[in-house]
Amino acid sequence: MSDVISQIADLIQRRDRFLVASHMNPDGDALGSSLGLALVLESMGKSAVVHNQGPVPALYGFLPAVERIQKDLPSDGYFEVSFVLDCSTPERVGESFRQFGNRGQVVVVDHHPPRHAMEGLHLIRTEAAATAELIYEITEALKVPLPGDAATALYAGLMTDTGSFRFSNTTPRALEVAGRLLAAGADHRRLIEQVYESFPPERFRLLGLALNTLRLLDNGRVAVIWITRPMFQEVGAEDEMTDGFVDIPRSIKGVEVAVLIREREDSECRVNLRSRGRVDVGDVASQFGGGGHPNAAGCTIKGPAPEVEGRLIKAIEEALS
Amino acid sequence: MSDVISQIADLIQRRDRFLVASHMNPDGDALGSSLGLALVLESMGKSAVVHNQGPVPALYGFLPAVERIQKDLPSDGYFEVSFVLDCSTPERVGESFRQFGNRGQVVVVDHHPPRHAMEGLHLIRTEAAATAELIYEITEALKVPLPGDAATALYAGLMTDTGSFRFSNTTPRALEVAGRLLAAGADHRRLIEQVYESFPPERFRLLGLALNTLRLLDNGRVAVIWITRPMFQEVGAEDEMTDGFVDIPRSIKGVEVAVLIREREDSECRVNLRSRGRVDVGDVASQFGGGGHPNAAGCTIKGPAPEVEGRLIKAIEEALS
Repeated sequence: MSDVISQIADLIQRRDRFLVASHMNPDGDALGSSLGLALVLESMGKSAVVHNQGPVPALYGFLPAVERIQKDLPSDGYFEVSFVLDCSTPERVGESFRQFGNRGQVVVVDHHPPRHAMEGLHLIRTEAAATAELIYEITEALKVPLPGDAATALYAGLMTDTGSFRFSNTTPRALEVAGRLLAAGADHRRLIEQVYESFPPERFRLLGLALNTLRLLDNGRVAVIWITRPMFQEVGAEDEMTDGFVDIPRSIKGVEVAVLIREREDSECRVNLRSRGRVDVGDVASQFGGGGHPNAAGCTIKGPAPEVEGRLIKAIEEALS
Repeated sequence: MSDVISQIADLIQRRDRFLVASHMNPDGDALGSSLGLALVLESMGKSAVVHNQGPVPALYGFLPAVERIQKDLPSDGYFEVSFVLDCSTPERVGESFRQFGNRGQVVVVDHHPPRHAMEGLHLIRTEAAATAELIYEITEALKVPLPGDAATALYAGLMTDTGSFRFSNTTPRALEVAGRLLAAGADHRRLIEQVYESFPPERFRLLGLALNTLRLLDNGRVAVIWITRPMFQEVGAEDEMTDGFVDIPRSIKGVEVAVLIREREDSECRVNLRSRGRVDVGDVASQFGGGGHPNAAGCTIKGPAPEVEGRLIKAIEEALS
């Protein structure tokens, strides 16, 4: 066991008043890690306040104890220990936390590459698949029984951050920890049902229209789908229902770059880009004032979808050549 | 370790000429288990013939050593030990194996409920997620290093039979074994790319057309999509490209029964049914001369899609009421 994990376990044993905070616009790992840790602390008889500036996506409204998440921190509250999860700066946690005075000892637990991480104890491991995996390491060091609800929350973090063990961050340890969380009582059936089987029908009506626009360009190396305003209106769908659509053109054999273009109400388009590795789509996106990673990026471009597509394809073809 | 596993390990140590056979129309587990076991046997200096009557789906053409699979068995060949994997009767293995005389000692390794399993040593465990998991147990008992290629083949079996760890057969042990296979060198990236990211574009063009037919019936408890002959022709798609389509209506919130209807060339429809548990769709399918499990079943019904839908919906609504 690493020194820092035993230090954190020791700190938990000796203190009673905890804050558990994570980043704004939380994903399944930020929420699952926070709720999992809070439930473990409470099972040990400690007090734990869970803070997230939100908004909590409806998708995660089923997580155990999710109703306990506090959007604001009381200005006169105080904590002996403040956990900062799945991020490492007060700015990412948000305004309420940034201005909060009585944080006590800060403990950062994260799996993202740190930039200007705040002072405190650091458990930052980029090789971990999810922050939830690191919270599990801490609970192991505590040698307390893991409550079933906490296991469910941590499994949610691990499952969503690995795309159900499909992404390249799926490691032997991630799978081993997932197995132990199941053994501790994680509610696998409910997690799968809530995360992968509770879609609104409008999502698939919209997907049907979007797939009708599928085009392969540059000898099948680029795949594009787009969604115009009339398409959103025809099926009564919201923009958030397009989550994951870009992975479909990316899953076509031979495709190097996948593009999803969504027309927004303000005569501009939101663009999602995915790459299998040969093209740095973060670089492509930055040419249009956007950003992201080499394999996943996005930008916003003025104009209707066909015009935006033309400009994008040109930039992608240059990157491919 | 169970007695039978140590008996099988002992048999492997003492013998040299092995046949590894699995069921006709093999899935990822039948193929992955067979190739994984054969590669382990060869790493120990044994001879192993892999037999499958086929056809091997194109999807699995990437598996290590897949080119070694023999469709026919030499009538004058002989083996000291014949493994029967992922099934338990000679009928499921097929004609060539059924008529083959020199099987030697038979060892059945399977995770399906046995019906009239053939005589021999039996490692039949319905609680295993996949036969590949049981082959892993045998390799552990052998205490030999697991070759990376064998780990890839076994991971393929475990991954496909659990739907990437989403199906209800995902157990703590299945995840633990998956982690160990990754640690042994299973090529995760290639597996994901080949199984989930190598689709022909026609699949998604067809899905687009199919989703345009999505209808929710019986207060949203039944979801139906259909594919007519003209739709197949419009996009130049094959029937086998519809694999997995029925899981999409099933993933809509509130849906109890999902239905996929595909028109075939002979003026009849192939029907796939999925249930979330309240309705036994095996029972519904049997009313039309089909069959299956309570949660997944199929049948063939005469007539064009709209007519077939009418008859099906009536039967499903009766089962739901």
